[in-house]
Amino acid sequence: MKKAVILISGGLDSATISAIAKAQNFELYGLSFDYGQRHKIELESAKKIANFFSFKEHKIANIDLRIFGKSALTADIAVPKSKFAFDKNQQISDEIPVTYVPARNTIFLSYCLAYCEVINAFDIFIGVNAIDYSGYPDCRKDYINAFTSMANLACASTIDLQNQFTIHTPLSDMDKKTIILNGLKLGVDYSLTHSCYDPEFIDGKIYSCGQCDSCRIRLKGFAEANSIDKILYRS
Amino acid sequence: MKKAVILISGGLDSATISAIAKAQNFELYGLSFDYGQRHKIELESAKKIANFFSFKEHKIANIDLRIFGKSALTADIAVPKSKFAFDKNQQISDEIPVTYVPARNTIFLSYCLAYCEVINAFDIFIGVNAIDYSGYPDCRKDYINAFTSMANLACASTIDLQNQFTIHTPLSDMDKKTIILNGLKLGVDYSLTHSCYDPEFIDGKIYSCGQCDSCRIRLKGFAEANSIDKILYRS
Repeated sequence: MKKAVILISGGLDSATISAIAKAQNFELYGLSFDYGQRHKIELESAKKIANFFSFKEHKIANIDLRIFGKSALTADIAVPKSKFAFDKNQQISDEIPVTYVPARNTIFLSYCLAYCEVINAFDIFIGVNAIDYSGYPDCRKDYINAFTSMANLACASTIDLQNQFTIHTPLSDMDKKTIILNGLKLGVDYSLTHSCYDPEFIDGKIYSCGQCDSCRIRLKGFAEANSIDKILYRS
Repeated sequence: MKKAVILISGGLDSATISAIAKAQNFELYGLSFDYGQRHKIELESAKKIANFFSFKEHKIANIDLRIFGKSALTADIAVPKSKFAFDKNQQISDEIPVTYVPARNTIFLSYCLAYCEVINAFDIFIGVNAIDYSGYPDCRKDYINAFTSMANLACASTIDLQNQFTIHTPLSDMDKKTIILNGLKLGVDYSLTHSCYDPEFIDGKIYSCGQCDSCRIRLKGFAEANSIDKILYRS
């Protein structure tokens, strides 16, 4: 069985790529990050996903992106509740969102390389999505291709040219609706996942805000997929 | 004044690149890593270097490479005392040393990108050296070029094509002797630096082993430069 490192954030994209990698017969090694995000709920979701898909191993790396600040996800900037991710035609905006974390995917993928070198894997799955996150430079295909070229020069394991990295981005051309439909077909339990940037605990249960970028994209996806999102919302 | 992020480990290479960047009139922003290295002495040296060259800022990022293990620098593998870095003709060996940390430079440079994005800098200095560290894949020029291409696609700040990253590797073609001679000319105080993989405290003073790869390369460099290394050695 070939090994693959799966970046799992705990969101629905990472649950879907886990299902896809498993369907492709990879042995799954999960990697998540405790990077000073304001809410740790997504890490709990990542653990649930790793468990649900019988990951061989799941590592959580502590990294400190707060030293650089400058993102609503790690610093003291309010998460936008407005129609930020959408312009007036309900199209996703081209602007770079305030929730963008500088160089995040580059840092995450770099850790994947280290993990790959140690377990002798050459396949990485990441849930980037060229459609929903057009505002994030590090979700573009050109970026992923450039990272792959760099990775194949970076690592001791690829000095042998028979071993080259493949970064799998199975969601790259899918919109949220298509992602959800694919995941449901593969048996993903999306109630394990978490997306909200601004969740709240009420009576011991997690309620998503329903208003932030991430909730809006998720809800739109479920609506278009004619499917029910079983997580709880405040609004 | 243009800003530059300088990767400073505390070794003599990083002291030298600090001097070179300063001589090129950059405003210096230092970045060091607490990555579970077995000895924290090099971080103390990094602070001394940042202070000596009047860095505008010096950040130390806590990152946890120990979760992946597999390096004498972060895991429980003995640091080789043999003539490991040198073959019988006293040439540097092509083998990948056990002290190689998987994907280390890729992880370090990725953090530099995040730092650059936050302070709006486009210049990074790293003390890689194609000659002394031929065994490390992530010190090669091809690797640095590939990283630069990737970086220019990764970051929000480079969407404007007028702003592109430059990764400066001024030591790339220098042997240790040349590095030391250049540094001395620029006023580097090498007694602030630390190189040894296996140092010891004796009566409150740091003694380098004189036997590990890093010490051997350093001592050979000072000898060839006809210069005195003012740090203390056990042997």
